[in-house]
Amino acid sequence: MVQNTECDIGFVGLGVMGKNLVLNLADNGYTVAAFDLDNEKIKTTIIQEKYESKQDKVRVVGCASYAELLTSLKSPHLIVLSVPAGYPVDQVCECLINGGIEPCDIVIDTGNSLWTDTVEREKKYKDNFILFSSAVSGGEVGARFGPSLMPSGSEYAWTRIKPIWEAISAKVDPETGKPINRNHPGEIVNYGEPCTTYIGPAGAGHFVKMVHNGIEYADMQIICEAYQALRDGLQLSADEIANIFEQWNKGPLESYLMEISVDVLRHKLTVNGKLTSVVDLIIDKAGQKGTGLWTAISSLELGTPAPTIAQAVYARSMSAMKSVRVKASSLLTGPDVNELTEQEKAVFIENLHDAVYCSKICAYAQGFQLMKDAQKEQGWQLNFSSIAKIWRAGCIIRAVFLQSITQAFEREPTLESLLVDPYFVEQLNKHQLNWRSAIASISLLGIPVGALSSSLAYFDSMRSNVLPANLLQGQRDYFGAHTFERVDQVQGKKYHIEWATAKKEMKEL
Amino acid sequence: MVQNTECDIGFVGLGVMGKNLVLNLADNGYTVAAFDLDNEKIKTTIIQEKYESKQDKVRVVGCASYAELLTSLKSPHLIVLSVPAGYPVDQVCECLINGGIEPCDIVIDTGNSLWTDTVEREKKYKDNFILFSSAVSGGEVGARFGPSLMPSGSEYAWTRIKPIWEAISAKVDPETGKPINRNHPGEIVNYGEPCTTYIGPAGAGHFVKMVHNGIEYADMQIICEAYQALRDGLQLSADEIANIFEQWNKGPLESYLMEISVDVLRHKLTVNGKLTSVVDLIIDKAGQKGTGLWTAISSLELGTPAPTIAQAVYARSMSAMKSVRVKASSLLTGPDVNELTEQEKAVFIENLHDAVYCSKICAYAQGFQLMKDAQKEQGWQLNFSSIAKIWRAGCIIRAVFLQSITQAFEREPTLESLLVDPYFVEQLNKHQLNWRSAIASISLLGIPVGALSSSLAYFDSMRSNVLPANLLQGQRDYFGAHTFERVDQVQGKKYHIEWATAKKEMKEL
Repeated sequence: MVQNTECDIGFVGLGVMGKNLVLNLADNGYTVAAFDLDNEKIKTTIIQEKYESKQDKVRVVGCASYAELLTSLKSPHLIVLSVPAGYPVDQVCECLINGGIEPCDIVIDTGNSLWTDTVEREKKYKDNFILFSSAVSGGEVGARFGPSLMPSGSEYAWTRIKPIWEAISAKVDPETGKPINRNHPGEIVNYGEPCTTYIGPAGAGHFVKMVHNGIEYADMQIICEAYQALRDGLQLSADEIANIFEQWNKGPLESYLMEISVDVLRHKLTVNGKLTSVVDLIIDKAGQKGTGLWTAISSLELGTPAPTIAQAVYARSMSAMKSVRVKASSLLTGPDVNELTEQEKAVFIENLHDAVYCSKICAYAQGFQLMKDAQKEQGWQLNFSSIAKIWRAGCIIRAVFLQSITQAFEREPTLESLLVDPYFVEQLNKHQLNWRSAIASISLLGIPVGALSSSLAYFDSMRSNVLPANLLQGQRDYFGAHTFERVDQVQGKKYHIEWATAKKEMKEL
Repeated sequence: MVQNTECDIGFVGLGVMGKNLVLNLADNGYTVAAFDLDNEKIKTTIIQEKYESKQDKVRVVGCASYAELLTSLKSPHLIVLSVPAGYPVDQVCECLINGGIEPCDIVIDTGNSLWTDTVEREKKYKDNFILFSSAVSGGEVGARFGPSLMPSGSEYAWTRIKPIWEAISAKVDPETGKPINRNHPGEIVNYGEPCTTYIGPAGAGHFVKMVHNGIEYADMQIICEAYQALRDGLQLSADEIANIFEQWNKGPLESYLMEISVDVLRHKLTVNGKLTSVVDLIIDKAGQKGTGLWTAISSLELGTPAPTIAQAVYARSMSAMKSVRVKASSLLTGPDVNELTEQEKAVFIENLHDAVYCSKICAYAQGFQLMKDAQKEQGWQLNFSSIAKIWRAGCIIRAVFLQSITQAFEREPTLESLLVDPYFVEQLNKHQLNWRSAIASISLLGIPVGALSSSLAYFDSMRSNVLPANLLQGQRDYFGAHTFERVDQVQGKKYHIEWATAKKEMKEL
């Protein structure tokens, strides 16, 4: 192992994400002292960096221990962790303490930590070092060529981290709001708007990243429901659906997820001598790693309605219940469906587009509402237009759509809901009829569209001046004496009816 | 305070539920030593018992301290707690320890404790006393005249508690599956099937009660959505809706919640000289006390799809967001709706009935699935037909419907889902077309029905041999190398495609 006491950054954890972040840092001129428990991973990273950079200068040096890592760095030390969320983060922190880390050193956790763990950790290690956290979105390609970075924690630490984070993050063309591509090793982009901004105190960045992932779940499920509607409702092939999605990707639905869906649907491989669409080979059992369900749990705990996100999580669980579905599908009957005319098919596709678009608006409205409610509870000062801005490139939900959200929060930083922003009001009002028609025809066709239909219920609930919760409060008062408020009395005054008595008198409490 | 060293049961906490449980115990011949921090509550309970029992024998004696409570009881002591969930339970436990409770004594927590707290507490206090828990459902009337009781914990403790619990619980006519009513103080019912059964180890009873409440949320929301569809869709008055619900309450929807909804909708009071339906006076902002959201959180954590329950929780949160809804309702437009003909209205009402019925089946399917999944994780041996049986009377979700569920699990104790039971398959197949039509017309009318429509999505997902999660797994493999399984290969074999390369080759891992 090479010794170098002047490295800019220490790096622990050289898995797919970690290695690519190291290569990204090296591209941007930073020298990195790298450590992993697996020595092979250190070697691979160093070789790949040498090969890709085509430079003589060594930018990545391997370290054999935590102590060596610390002595290889400029002081105060800056160490980036890319290890699995949970216990491994604490293990590394303990090793760094044993290795001689100092109180003015900075440790940046870039994993998918649960945000409340991050809050606890900042307190736990405050006498040993400064724990900073920065969620990373964009998968392995994002990590390599520019991710979206959501940093939070000590503001002092941020002043040191900021130039590095701005260098390695994705960049956006401020005019169009679209990503500036950077696809080759060695290439850097040092213009445009960087996809990173200081989010807030400890945990805030991981909370925002968690919500990003919750929205990502919803986005993906919405696309998948459209796919099933086209596949099973219109009996279209993967190629035909790819063509439709390709068209959709030219309008307001333009996004990375739509783009890769087209790629996935188009891809064919020869299997047993037959050219087969890959998507038809993949089994319909979805996995999940937790951030979507954390988002849904947060929304329940905070009392923020997020039905589209929860539906997306449940859809994954439901897909995993393959054997009972196969059994149920042989027992439960659906509607008999006549084949649609070409004209009817065209209308169906147009309506479906609008259902996807409007549901997407609702999913984002839920995500931003959740951040708003968390901010209130945690006393954060989130800047929602900045958050939308840094999601325009680098991350999985990157889309032109985020430019509209950025603008909505620039117009009104304390916007109560995306659903009352003038632009989104106009969009929803324009498309709501088609959206309804889509839900109606898909329900009659027998295709499950929980994310699309719960989004419509969300929209129609927001439109409901009076929801049916008056009856619900009546029921609760009846069986549990839970009391209610009255429409004709001041807010907060509680009433109860003695339902069990003959007179059923109302009492003010 | 009277001293009596021979009381059968000690009782702590004389709120509405506690007082009524004490009176119920007294009706059934048990003597109770009662304690509350509020001396007035002790007095009221004693006076009410004397007045209601019209007997000379004193069945309830008050105690001035925890120590006095313990010395007033037969040994080993049996003490029932009816205090708010959370910290108060631990406070009382500590006081009992200071008051001299012994290791062979039994303490029964009857509050709405979070089931995991109960598990922790059993361990925490095991050297001090035997902590047993028994959830109580049925509200204040249930507590007084026969609740549904869901006991769990030490089997030894259960042998002592069982006769008491069977005496005070609600009873069911085994022939009809309907409750045997007991409405008057002093009256007892010592025949029929008691609504209590040993659920399992510590925490199991509170888990089952939590799921009961989650189902209750769904049941209530389903009724409320039907109410809104009739109120805003057909412009019917509270009285007209009460008439429809009264009809529905004679068929498979017959239930306590439907019955009290009719009562609430019918009730009128004179306000400012005008006879007004009470339901129209109640503000549409729902409260919640946590058990519904705990159920939804458990379902997310266990990976059990429970969209109808989650929608019901979100609907309450949404109702509480009154001010933003009022604003949004002035900005967002809905469909223009033509008035329906009488014939169309009749069809709408019939379809709506079937939507309510089928959604209810889905909500219960979700609840039972959740208990099944929890059982697997916790190693419990739940008896699902017994659980359905004890919900037939006493509790809030009591309904003839539970008799059908009891029978389903008697036919097949390890039933994978209610949706594959022959009876429910037949019911769903019979009504699914009307259900679809209801969702279609309500969507077009612009009324939010998240619980009804997410139930349909749940049903159609269960009917889906192939869900669209194949595309989802393709997307996940594309951006995150999350791998996938193949339909034509053995289960568990993982594949990955190198999406970023030109050839996009598939690799077996």
